[in-house]
Amino acid sequence: MLNALDKLMLEKVADLHDIPQGAFNIRKNGQGVQRNTTENIDIITKTDKSGIDVIVKPYTQGETVHIPVIVTEDNLNDVVYNTFEIGEYSDVEIIAGCGIHNCGTQKSQHDGIHTFYVRKGAKLKYVEKHYGQGEGTGQRVLNPKTIIEAEAGAVVELELIQIKGIDRTKRETEIRLMGNAKLVVTERLLTYLDQEAESSINVELLGVDSSAQIISRSVAQDNSKQEFYFDLDGKNKCRGHIQCDAIIMHNAVVLSTPKISAHHSEAQLVHEAAIGRIESEQLIKLMSLGFSEKEAEDTILNGFLK
Amino acid sequence: MLNALDKLMLEKVADLHDIPQGAFNIRKNGQGVQRNTTENIDIITKTDKSGIDVIVKPYTQGETVHIPVIVTEDNLNDVVYNTFEIGEYSDVEIIAGCGIHNCGTQKSQHDGIHTFYVRKGAKLKYVEKHYGQGEGTGQRVLNPKTIIEAEAGAVVELELIQIKGIDRTKRETEIRLMGNAKLVVTERLLTYLDQEAESSINVELLGVDSSAQIISRSVAQDNSKQEFYFDLDGKNKCRGHIQCDAIIMHNAVVLSTPKISAHHSEAQLVHEAAIGRIESEQLIKLMSLGFSEKEAEDTILNGFLK
Repeated sequence: MLNALDKLMLEKVADLHDIPQGAFNIRKNGQGVQRNTTENIDIITKTDKSGIDVIVKPYTQGETVHIPVIVTEDNLNDVVYNTFEIGEYSDVEIIAGCGIHNCGTQKSQHDGIHTFYVRKGAKLKYVEKHYGQGEGTGQRVLNPKTIIEAEAGAVVELELIQIKGIDRTKRETEIRLMGNAKLVVTERLLTYLDQEAESSINVELLGVDSSAQIISRSVAQDNSKQEFYFDLDGKNKCRGHIQCDAIIMHNAVVLSTPKISAHHSEAQLVHEAAIGRIESEQLIKLMSLGFSEKEAEDTILNGFLK
Repeated sequence: MLNALDKLMLEKVADLHDIPQGAFNIRKNGQGVQRNTTENIDIITKTDKSGIDVIVKPYTQGETVHIPVIVTEDNLNDVVYNTFEIGEYSDVEIIAGCGIHNCGTQKSQHDGIHTFYVRKGAKLKYVEKHYGQGEGTGQRVLNPKTIIEAEAGAVVELELIQIKGIDRTKRETEIRLMGNAKLVVTERLLTYLDQEAESSINVELLGVDSSAQIISRSVAQDNSKQEFYFDLDGKNKCRGHIQCDAIIMHNAVVLSTPKISAHHSEAQLVHEAAIGRIESEQLIKLMSLGFSEKEAEDTILNGFLK
C-alpha cells in the first residue's frame, strides 16, 4: 500500500525506514492507510469528524506512537482532529511528522488540530516534523494547531521542526500547566524562496511551581518571512524562560514579538531574543580550514538548527 | 510669581533650587509664567496652538534648557505642543519635568506632545521626570508623547523617569534614526496603589550603522499595573538592543511585549526581558548587616531604579 515515494516521505518526517515498532497510524491523502495498536495504546477512529483518538493507559512505560501524515496529491485540503489521552504516570513518545509531495499546480494543505490531555505525573515527548518537496508550482501548506493540558506533575517536551519545503505555515500552540508541571519546547524553522512562516506559542503557568522553557531557532533566507509570537503568562508562583534566535540572510524579514506577563508576584519570567546574520568570525574560521564560503555557511546553519 | 509649593515641585522634577542658568520656560497650570533665552537658544510661543518652539542654533555647545511644567490645580486638562529644533553640531541638554500637586477631587492632567528635530551631528540629552503629590482624591495623569527625528550622525540620549505619585500614564515615544545616528533610552518607572502605567517605545533604524539601546527598569507594587511595548525595527545595517527588567511585588501585574523586527539582513537586534521579585539573597545579605526587611527592600529598589 505504501510506494517508494511514501516511504521516502515517512523517512523524512518520522525517521521511519520500515513499518514502525509499537503503535502507529499512517494517514495518506486524507485517509488512514495502516494502523497498529498495542496492549497499552489504543488508536480509535473518530466517528464525529476526521481524526483519531490515541489512548495511552496509565503507567505505560517507554512506548512510542508514530502518526505520520503524507500528502502526495495536489488540490487537497486535509483537516484532521486528533485527541491524545496520556494516562497518569505513563512515559511515552509520539512522533507526528507531515510530509507533502506536490507535483501539481494546485495547493496541498494539511491542518492538524491536536489536543493532548497529559494526566497527573505523566511524561510526554511529542515530535512534529514538517517537510515538503515536489517540482509542482502548487503551494505546500501546513497549519498545525496544538493544544496541551498538562496536569499536576506532568512533564511535556515538544520538538517542533520545519525541515524544508513548506511554502506557508501558521502554527498555533496553546499550553496550560498545572502545579509542578514542566514544559520544554524546542522549535526549529527554516524558510527560503518566498516562504512565509508564523508561529505563536502561548503558555499559561497556572499551577504552583509550574515551569516552561521555550527555545526557538530559525533561519530566514531569500525573500522569506517569519513571524514569531510568544506569550508566557505567569498566574502563580512559577518560572518561565523564552529564548529565540534567528539568523537572517538575503532579503528575508524576521519579526519577533515575545510577551511575558506576570500576574503573580512570584512569577519569574525571562525572555531573550536575538536576530542577526551569521557571525563572520565563524565563517572565516571554517574557510581557513578549507571550506568554501557556501560549505562554511551550510555547516554553521546546520549546527544552529540541530 | 512662584510660591514655596511651586519651588518644591520644580526641585522634584528638574532639580532646580533656584531660577536656572541659561534658557528656560516655566509653565504653571496651563500658562507660561517665566522665560529666559540666550544668544544661542531662542524660545518662541506658538501662535497656532498651546506650546513653544525651542530653537538651538547650530554649533551651540554645552548649554541647558529647562522647561518644567507644574500643575497645582485640579480639574485641569493641559495639552501642550512643544517643538525643538536642535541645530547641527550643537550639544545641549533639555530638562523637561512635570510635577502635579493635586489636593482636589477632580483629575489633573498634563499631555505634552514633544517633537524634536535633531540635526546632523548634533548631540541631545533629554531628561523628563514625572512626579505627583497632594492629598486630594483627584487623579494625577500624565500622557507624554515624544517624537524624535535624528539626522545623520546625531546622538540622542533620553532619560524618562516617573519618580512617584502618578495615577495614570500613557507614554508614547517614536524615534527615527538616520545614518550613524545613535540612541540611548533609559526608562525608570515606579507604580504602587492602583496606579497604571503604559509605555510604548518604537524605534525605526533607517540609516546605515544607526544604533539604539533601550534600558527599561521598573518596580510594580500593591495593585498597580504596568504595560510595556517596545519595537526595534531594523531597516538597514544597524544594531539595536532592548533590555527591560521589572521587579514585581504584592498583587501587581507587569506585561512586557517587546518586538524586534529585522527588515534587513545586516540588522542585528537583541532583546532581553526579565520580570521577577526581589532576590531573596540580596535581602538576606542586607538584613544580616542590620537592615530591617523594609529598609533592605527600599535599598534594593532604590539601587535598581537609580
